[in-house]
Amino acid sequence: MVKILVGNDFDEVLRTRPASGWWNQRVTWFAEDGDLVILPARPEESFLRYVTGMTGTRRSSLRVLVPPAEEGRPDTLSGSCLVDEEFLGQIRSALAGRPVTGIVPLWPSASIARLARALGVPEALAGREFAEQGGGALLNSKTAFRAIAAGVGVGLPCGRVCADRDGTVDAVLELVGAGHIAMLKKDYMSGGAGNEIVSPVPGVSPVGAKNVVVAADEAAVVRYVEDRWDWLTDGGRHQFVVERYHPGSVACFAEFLITDDGIEFGAHGEMLSEPVTTKQIIPPPAFSGQVLDDLTDQGRRLCEPLRAMGYRGRLSADAIVTPDGELLFTEYNGRITGSTHVYSVFGEKIVGGDFMKDRVLFEGFWPKGWSVPSFDEAVRRLTEAGLVYDRGSRTGVIISSAFDRRDDTLLHCVVAESLSEARTVEERLAGLFAAR
Amino acid sequence: MVKILVGNDFDEVLRTRPASGWWNQRVTWFAEDGDLVILPARPEESFLRYVTGMTGTRRSSLRVLVPPAEEGRPDTLSGSCLVDEEFLGQIRSALAGRPVTGIVPLWPSASIARLARALGVPEALAGREFAEQGGGALLNSKTAFRAIAAGVGVGLPCGRVCADRDGTVDAVLELVGAGHIAMLKKDYMSGGAGNEIVSPVPGVSPVGAKNVVVAADEAAVVRYVEDRWDWLTDGGRHQFVVERYHPGSVACFAEFLITDDGIEFGAHGEMLSEPVTTKQIIPPPAFSGQVLDDLTDQGRRLCEPLRAMGYRGRLSADAIVTPDGELLFTEYNGRITGSTHVYSVFGEKIVGGDFMKDRVLFEGFWPKGWSVPSFDEAVRRLTEAGLVYDRGSRTGVIISSAFDRRDDTLLHCVVAESLSEARTVEERLAGLFAAR
Repeated sequence: MVKILVGNDFDEVLRTRPASGWWNQRVTWFAEDGDLVILPARPEESFLRYVTGMTGTRRSSLRVLVPPAEEGRPDTLSGSCLVDEEFLGQIRSALAGRPVTGIVPLWPSASIARLARALGVPEALAGREFAEQGGGALLNSKTAFRAIAAGVGVGLPCGRVCADRDGTVDAVLELVGAGHIAMLKKDYMSGGAGNEIVSPVPGVSPVGAKNVVVAADEAAVVRYVEDRWDWLTDGGRHQFVVERYHPGSVACFAEFLITDDGIEFGAHGEMLSEPVTTKQIIPPPAFSGQVLDDLTDQGRRLCEPLRAMGYRGRLSADAIVTPDGELLFTEYNGRITGSTHVYSVFGEKIVGGDFMKDRVLFEGFWPKGWSVPSFDEAVRRLTEAGLVYDRGSRTGVIISSAFDRRDDTLLHCVVAESLSEARTVEERLAGLFAAR
Repeated sequence: MVKILVGNDFDEVLRTRPASGWWNQRVTWFAEDGDLVILPARPEESFLRYVTGMTGTRRSSLRVLVPPAEEGRPDTLSGSCLVDEEFLGQIRSALAGRPVTGIVPLWPSASIARLARALGVPEALAGREFAEQGGGALLNSKTAFRAIAAGVGVGLPCGRVCADRDGTVDAVLELVGAGHIAMLKKDYMSGGAGNEIVSPVPGVSPVGAKNVVVAADEAAVVRYVEDRWDWLTDGGRHQFVVERYHPGSVACFAEFLITDDGIEFGAHGEMLSEPVTTKQIIPPPAFSGQVLDDLTDQGRRLCEPLRAMGYRGRLSADAIVTPDGELLFTEYNGRITGSTHVYSVFGEKIVGGDFMKDRVLFEGFWPKGWSVPSFDEAVRRLTEAGLVYDRGSRTGVIISSAFDRRDDTLLHCVVAESLSEARTVEERLAGLFAAR
């Protein structure tokens, strides 16, 4: 009984995210005794020891494999690197004849389906047929999302899917001409990194988007579209979305697990951006029961056509609640997201109990200016400060990512009884990690 | 009570089909008393008189409108030409206050949804929300089809969705290396015009594809992919499909109407290609009841996720039956196809009765070498030869398209009691229209 976990990423034909290897090591949180973990880069032993210490998985029972780093092998683990004959041999010898009961990729790539087939266990990958024929693109496209979300009748910001310059100018002008702010969203980016705001007035602070461009009249909009065409379309390859941006909204998500048996609710959360997604709060602290119910019901409605298409796996439905209290969906993500391990491992397994009722999980990236020399040093400082997660009180800090050597940072999750307590812990963490 | 029929075509950002205006005049077959018909080009009066004479619609009750031909206005009627203020004024004055009960486009374009909204009758367009956000692309993409068809578990030829050169070379080599023939299919073309065959051996005659390229080894496949990359991807814009080509197969379709209430079966047909689609036979003459049942059942299964997404309209599920009797689906088309008027107007309304049991409809393009000076002359020759459709015997020839001035041809439909009788009529038609 072995699961194969794969820390893969978006197929690089959709999107490239250089050096995402450290980030995708989070798949290790899902490892149980005996599992095989395939990662794009060799993880630090400190990280593996830490994760397995937290989950109670025996480190010695896990096998970690990294495909050979031939020239040009992508960090995404897509393409043919997973079915390289030598690497398949390594997998087979690590399996040592044990049956594979599941293959769990972060991203439902066709390459994972080919891996499942090459190992002779196609049925171990839920939704294999859909993934094998490139279905992952439909689950992570903001333009496919707009069509399907409109079709199932969930709330949506006004806007359009755009594919040509004239239509884009029209769509932006329709918004800015009415005094609204427009957001342009690339098809396959995430966390707001592929979003840009066009405002008729200065002074808008970008939340959920990289930056703001002021364009109030047709000439300015035409110029903007011309300037940014290549970026918006990934060099002419993809459509994109133009929609109304609602300043002052609260961003949130409802995540589900789509299986052969049905659609299981996972968790709700709030997302904070400054300007792109940095933190999440599970459960969302600010919403009424009615809004949460709507978020769940409409999120579930979004899952239905995806389940009908043959997708099996996690789906996060992302939305905003506007200052007027309107619930508007902004995208979906059919993959294991940056929230999945937080609620399903930290919440359900480590914190346990009725964590969605009696605890707050406050998780995410470090603010600018925080850093630490190494993963071990982060653990040491947390321990000395008495801030490491404590199983008795069910509170404290869980380090949630591998160490990102590009800027010497981590992600962490504060588990607390309330958001204000979590914020107090954050202040103490600033004392440990903020540059002095 | 007015329907607005729109003879539009694929959005030109997906695909351009120059001079498709004559072809899209077929929407006129659906016109009933009082309807408004929007066409890309002014139709010949001969054609309108003929069509309304056949359907029993009063010609004088119809209004035909053509959007102003400003510079660059596409034949597809997409973009903003339908919501041009002056044109909207013409539509409103043609409606003269009558309520619009339906808007029926050939293609579920976002521009049609904008028209419906601009006229203040959004609910007149079934599936408006999905169409408005670009859903049409998902219904007519061969790559989205592959994912969804695999996901719902219908039969599919072996193959993959491709987006990069290396993966394409792999996919083609996997087939030709095993002695199979590969077909490469562009995302948004139709009738086989976007398909090309790569064979390891010479002598394959292309059916359902434009042409055949011989490539037996890796070097030849690499060269082929490099040479054709721009064509396959529409200049880097779209993914495409590589799948096994089964020579000697019979091509067929099952068409459905997806509504709020459910999925209605329309008709089956066989498609003949020489090499691209030229003729259709409704019902298909060569299939067993079991194959027809499978075609209907699996075709219906393909409709389910599209209905769940919010599409409302016709869907044709196209398949082949291999020499081994396997039923394999090859694409779907979510639009009013070149078959819809044949079964639903010629069959159900003109021929009537139990036409799927006691008649054969043999319809399509003229063979190379046939021509006629004008539409009226075609009618005259058919009449003199006693071949025009006769309501008493429920047999004869129906002209099914407007006149194509590019090569002085038409499409026609022979209605006969059997396929062999239809072929006899075809021989007599050769005498009337083949160049002497």
